[in-house]
Order: sequence, then C-alpha cells, then structure tokens
Amino acid sequence: MPSGHTVVAFDAELATLHRKIAEMGGLAEEQLIRAMEALVARDENLATSIIARDVDLDRNEAEIEALVVRVLALRQPMAKDLREVISALKISTNLERVGDFSSNCAKRVMALTQVPPTGPMKSLNRMGKTAATMVHDVVKAYVDEDYDLAMAVRARDAEVDAVYTSLFRELLTYMMESPQQITACTHLMFIAKNIERIGDHATNIAETVCFLVKGQIPDVERLKEDMSSFTVVSPRDQ
Amino acid sequence: MPSGHTVVAFDAELATLHRKIAEMGGLAEEQLIRAMEALVARDENLATSIIARDVDLDRNEAEIEALVVRVLALRQPMAKDLREVISALKISTNLERVGDFSSNCAKRVMALTQVPPTGPMKSLNRMGKTAATMVHDVVKAYVDEDYDLAMAVRARDAEVDAVYTSLFRELLTYMMESPQQITACTHLMFIAKNIERIGDHATNIAETVCFLVKGQIPDVERLKEDMSSFTVVSPRDQ
Repeated sequence: MPSGHTVVAFDAELATLHRKIAEMGGLAEEQLIRAMEALVARDENLATSIIARDVDLDRNEAEIEALVVRVLALRQPMAKDLREVISALKISTNLERVGDFSSNCAKRVMALTQVPPTGPMKSLNRMGKTAATMVHDVVKAYVDEDYDLAMAVRARDAEVDAVYTSLFRELLTYMMESPQQITACTHLMFIAKNIERIGDHATNIAETVCFLVKGQIPDVERLKEDMSSFTVVSPRDQ
Repeated sequence: MPSGHTVVAFDAELATLHRKIAEMGGLAEEQLIRAMEALVARDENLATSIIARDVDLDRNEAEIEALVVRVLALRQPMAKDLREVISALKISTNLERVGDFSSNCAKRVMALTQVPPTGPMKSLNRMGKTAATMVHDVVKAYVDEDYDLAMAVRARDAEVDAVYTSLFRELLTYMMESPQQITACTHLMFIAKNIERIGDHATNIAETVCFLVKGQIPDVERLKEDMSSFTVVSPRDQ
C-alpha cells in the first residue's frame, strides 16, 4: 500500500498536471485568437510575436511529458489515476499541434501582407473563432471532467469541417477569377486547413476527456473528415 | 521484486508491442507508396482501396494504446522499460497520422482523375518515395534500437522540406499559367503538404527512438519547418 506521504505527493503531481494542461490550453487558444486578429488586421508585428511564442507551447509539452514519465515511474498509478496521466500526455501533444497550426497561420499572414487583400475573410475569421471556442471549451471540459461538454465540442467539429469545405470551393473560384489572387488565396486555403485541423485536435482532446471520465472512447462514429479533398471546381462553374 | 512469471509476461508484452509497431509501420509505409502509385497512374480503384484500408491503422493505434495502458497498470515498468512503453504509444500516434495523410492523398487522387493531368508529378513522386523511405528506416531504427539510423532519418527531413518549398512555388506558377490547372494544382499542393507532414512524423518517431535508446531527445536543433508558408509568387515572376 502507498504511504500517506506518497498519496499526498501523487495528488500534488496530478494537480500540477491539471494546472499545466489548463495553462497550455489557455495559451494555445490565445495563439489562435491572436493569429485571427493578425490575419484580419494584416498585422506583421502581431504575427511575428505569435511565431516567437510557439516555443512556449513546445516547452509546455516537454515539461508535461517529463512530469508524466516521472509520475509513471515513481507512483505507478492505476485505474483512474493512470488514465489521468495518459490523458495529460495525449492532451499536451494535441495542444502543441494547435500551437503549431496557429503559428503556421501567423507565418502565412506575413506572406499575405505582401499581396493585396482578397478572399472570404469574414467566414475565415468566424471559422477561426469557432475553433478557438472549441479549444476553450474542451480544456474546460478536461478541467471540470465534464463529459457532456466534451461530447458537445466533438459534435461541433462537423460545423468546422462544413465551413472548411465550403471555403475551399469559394477560394478556388476566387483563384480562377484572377491570377493576381492565387498566392493570397493559396495561403488562405492553408490557413483554413490549419483551422480545420485545430478542430480535429480539439475533437481528439474531447475524446480523451471521455476516456478519462468514463474509461472508454465514445462509440458513435462521427463524420471525421472534411469533404474538400474530393472537391473539383472548373473555371466554367463560376 | 517482480516474480519470474511477471518478468516473462512483461517481456512477452514488450515483444508484442514491438511486433505491432513494426507491422503498423510496414502498413503505413505501404499506404504511402500505394498512394504515390495511385497518383502517378491516376488509378481510382487503387485510391479507393487505400482509403478503405486506413481503418486498419486506426485499429492498430487503438490496440497499441490499449496494450500500453494494460502494461502500465499491470507491470508498472520503470526506466528503460517505461521508455519502451511510452515510446510505443507515441510512435503509434505518429504512424496513425502517416496513414491519415496517405489516405488524404488518395482522396485527392479521386478529384485529380476528374481533371486533366498537370503539375510536376516526377518531383512529387520522388518526394513521396523519400518520405516512404524515411518511414521505413525509422521503423527499422526503432526495431533495431539504432540511434545512428534514427539521427540520419531526422537529418533527411530537411531535404523533404526543401523539395516541398520548391514544389509549392512551382505549383503556384502552374496555377497562374491557366485557371484550368487551379483545381488540380491545389490538390497537388495539399498532397505535397501531406508528404511534408509525413516527413515531420517520421522525424518525431526518430526523436522518440533517440529518447528510447539514450533517455533523451537529441540536442541539436533542426530546421523544423518548410519555408513555403512565407512564399509569395506574383504572376509577373513567371
């Protein structure tokens, strides 16, 4: 049996894991929100600061992984405690990816400021905000162990996928209208794809929260992928 | 102290983890190679079979994760044994992503067969083969615990990134030449991006192998990202 001292130490470590994930989630969400601001405002300085800050998320992930390995080795947790630790590892990996995608959006803002503004910016911005809310809510679901909220986030991913597929089509038609818009629209397309991927990572985290709370991944198969990969638009469709 | 029986059972479970990762790696590599074949041959049937087979990789990942959780709970491994188990978890996540990207390439082949052939197919195919070799070699590095091979794979990622950045520019110029090529080139661009991401996942696995063998991630910072996100091409550059 573990001693009282060990139990207290373990609880403290789990609390630290929770806190670190919550902080990392807040930063990942903020990076995405700021990337959308930089995009709309064509703000190179803001974009630069987002790119520079991505290392903080990389460091967060490394710290959480080190703590997970330490807890597994020292405390040898079981059942729910073990799920806590595995979940922290998986969630941190997903949040780090959210950060990478936000940073990549910021890099593309740097390219976009060099060409005339174009494209369906409002839809793109709205899609970004939806994804940021998903990240916010899924981290809240993790902190509160709120299964229903996690499932709600997971359901919302279909909305992001649908907007992405429609944006993909729309951007293709913009590109066909004039070659001057191709570079800009290509970057906007990748920004949209980044946001769609952020939605996927929020969904992965939601499933991890379900695993944490109930011990298994939810059954209902969700429509996983956007349909843009199958999209064909020809110039005469416009 | 663990009993002899426990040690034997643990060794058998580690051997199973190794075998499952090796099999999963083989399948992920094969999916990518076949996706490139489908692309070059414009083969819809092959593309369909690749898309259908992606569930096998999803199942592999779920099985490995279940085994990891089981081993952690029952055997409470430490030191190198613990690294073995954590590494298996991380590698399976990365291989599953390799599968997703290969499957996404196959989906885009379905769209590409509906439009006239265009684009720098040879370079794209070569890039795909390089990434497939990276996946092959990094799984071999894992099986053989070959640190040097893992480091060599990691170094090769810069080559894939450079080809991607150059392909991105080239595809932009193709698109500017004629609106008829925009849909095709957009899908080719995302295929190139998928391959670039597969290179990143092979690199992640290489770093995990280094962590497994030496207990830490290699120090030397590698040039992480392709430069395409910053690329601007205007029609007059052609």
